Amino acid sequence: MANQQEEILQLGLRAREASAAMARAGTQEKNHALQHIGQTLLSSQKEILAANLLDLREAEAGGMSPAMMDRLRLTEERLAAMAGAVGKVAALDDPIGQVDSGQTRPNGLIISRYRVPLGVVGMIYESRPNVTVDAAALCLKSGNACILRGGREAIHTNRALAESIRNAIATCGLPRDAVQLVSDTSRESARAMMRLNGYIDVLIPRGGAGLIRTVVENATVPVIQTGVGNCHVYVDDPCDLVMAEKIIVNAKCSRPSVCNAAETLLVHKNIAPEFLPRAARAMAPYHVELRGCPQTAAILGAAVRPADEQDYATEFNDYILAVKVVDSLEEAVCHIRRYGTGHSEAIVTDSYAHSREFVAGVDAAAVYVNASTRFTDGEEFGLGAEIGISTQKLHTRGPMGLRDLTTIQYVILGSGQIR
Amino acid sequence: MANQQEEILQLGLRAREASAAMARAGTQEKNHALQHIGQTLLSSQKEILAANLLDLREAEAGGMSPAMMDRLRLTEERLAAMAGAVGKVAALDDPIGQVDSGQTRPNGLIISRYRVPLGVVGMIYESRPNVTVDAAALCLKSGNACILRGGREAIHTNRALAESIRNAIATCGLPRDAVQLVSDTSRESARAMMRLNGYIDVLIPRGGAGLIRTVVENATVPVIQTGVGNCHVYVDDPCDLVMAEKIIVNAKCSRPSVCNAAETLLVHKNIAPEFLPRAARAMAPYHVELRGCPQTAAILGAAVRPADEQDYATEFNDYILAVKVVDSLEEAVCHIRRYGTGHSEAIVTDSYAHSREFVAGVDAAAVYVNASTRFTDGEEFGLGAEIGISTQKLHTRGPMGLRDLTTIQYVILGSGQIR
Repeated sequence: MANQQEEILQLGLRAREASAAMARAGTQEKNHALQHIGQTLLSSQKEILAANLLDLREAEAGGMSPAMMDRLRLTEERLAAMAGAVGKVAALDDPIGQVDSGQTRPNGLIISRYRVPLGVVGMIYESRPNVTVDAAALCLKSGNACILRGGREAIHTNRALAESIRNAIATCGLPRDAVQLVSDTSRESARAMMRLNGYIDVLIPRGGAGLIRTVVENATVPVIQTGVGNCHVYVDDPCDLVMAEKIIVNAKCSRPSVCNAAETLLVHKNIAPEFLPRAARAMAPYHVELRGCPQTAAILGAAVRPADEQDYATEFNDYILAVKVVDSLEEAVCHIRRYGTGHSEAIVTDSYAHSREFVAGVDAAAVYVNASTRFTDGEEFGLGAEIGISTQKLHTRGPMGLRDLTTIQYVILGSGQIR
Repeated sequence: MANQQEEILQLGLRAREASAAMARAGTQEKNHALQHIGQTLLSSQKEILAANLLDLREAEAGGMSPAMMDRLRLTEERLAAMAGAVGKVAALDDPIGQVDSGQTRPNGLIISRYRVPLGVVGMIYESRPNVTVDAAALCLKSGNACILRGGREAIHTNRALAESIRNAIATCGLPRDAVQLVSDTSRESARAMMRLNGYIDVLIPRGGAGLIRTVVENATVPVIQTGVGNCHVYVDDPCDLVMAEKIIVNAKCSRPSVCNAAETLLVHKNIAPEFLPRAARAMAPYHVELRGCPQTAAILGAAVRPADEQDYATEFNDYILAVKVVDSLEEAVCHIRRYGTGHSEAIVTDSYAHSREFVAGVDAAAVYVNASTRFTDGEEFGLGAEIGISTQKLHTRGPMGLRDLTTIQYVILGSGQIR
């Protein structure tokens, strides 16, 4: 334990040092470094893929599932896509130095609110190695230093990626330690990061519900909670059933493993007899398992397993959908307030009044009227790229882009004012 | 312990319920309630002052210092000022429902960012009873419910204040439980609040460094760290010595107990021989104790106690000033980066280049050029009123007004879009 704490403290000291230089780096310098990172990732392809192969072999020997292996696997194409993503971050507007607002006070003080970097961003994440590259790129562009702690299963890949990123940064004259990878993937290193007050300004966990919970429960540094999405689609009366069918199929089946996928379908009782059979037919090619309330079962028959309390509270991340027939819009809103995780919620309706009531009643980062929940994403929201999706209310909510990696600083210009 | 947890959980449940109604309350409704609170505070003057007298008697019996007794004491004038402050909050713009930004995406989705309430705000604070009224008013206006836990020493006063606020709210048709006071002032009740995830959306501690530290170390709910201010005034070469003298006297002596008062004076070596004696003379009427580096002592002589490491790290909140002669602007910036708490830092200079360098180098919520640090305050910054001063970087920084008690919600209007 003492060793891990010491390693993390050293990373923290170096990150803080690097963050001071990063805060002063100009936009051109940062963009140049990002472009160079993209090139270096491509020119280090051989080493990176070899490292990835090591991880894959260990994963296979350890009995990792094929789906998880796929998340871990890098290919030439995937590496090229990662390098391309870094180039896209270079092309985004630099949030640093933007003036949010300003005023001259009656006493002559000129008070301006500037965007400045957060300082040091800590990330604790699992499996997918692209997070290493995305997080480094977003943190660099926003003038922050970062400390990245990926999972054990991707450690060789992450080391190779981080090494090539650090070399590229240093070549461009920015501090190599602006990006640091925690080489120790023990629980203790994660816990030490969670308590590195004074060195880490914000900690962003990305991964399953267990990881997020551990961080929230143990961190003393400020945390942005991300990603757990128990999302609902409510099919209202009246609505366009064709549209509702397309939306639930998309929200459930287009990529069930992600946080903006739907987990529960709520259907107004008036349209349930007509809608549920057609929704079930439309999802049949995807072999979606339905877990429904008694009314759902009465309509759909033996194909439906009975849903219990736990099903309504679960983010399945799989081809499973909980279903409930509700008596009213109000019941739908109550259900969502009870079981939702504040991520993304959708209503399909033809009623203007109902759309307003749903938006006012549901408390989530993103509330949709007549669209799929799958759009909750930095790219889709026009942020360019995202470092995660906040499901807490502090700092920001929903997809987090470059601006969400900044804070403000008041600069006050005076001429001798005293109070 | 179990009892306290149960009481707090009940408060949390009621607050969450009330917050749903508060989120839907219109501006006029909220303003009407605020005006009524102001009137009720005045009409309940007798009960409130009687309750305050109970607290004062217990405090005196317990040997409380006169300065602390003064913070606790209510008078007709102070109560009238508190009621007046509530009226001022009513007059401020309502942040709720404001649209920060919006766009129509290429796929036709209309995405807007709305300001919505945080939900339930928890406050843990010490002694001064006006926090009870200010926090309740700001939370109500921003559509939040609040759970207030004041100190043991003010419990009778806080109960009387909260009762009169709750009555006024209920009379106006808003939920009485939008404002709740924790009647149990044990440590356990505070700890239970710190872990009330799912019910408290943000916890704001206000008080001494010990309280803030306890909350940061123990809370699992999101926290906004407030208030500890180890603020510096750096007197540069070249500068207007008359201005510098006025600024340090104001920053140190106008109200030493507050967080935006200066604790350390840094002086460039070129001007120290001339400036330090005149600064010492100007502060003499306030009996400021100076704790200086060897160079300071060499200039000022026996009047200066030697300063140690601890002095530079301390927020004295008293008529004590640490002094250090520095060789350069760079040394001043390094000193501030090392000892500062990220609150308010000032440079007095005649050099444009130095002013820019200081602003770029110092990492604090408010950086001043040629003005006193004492201006870091919601009222002075034009926010109307403040609920605290954030010294962390997440969510907001510096004085927190109504807008900082809100978060965002994305509302996405579609016409059947799927991804």
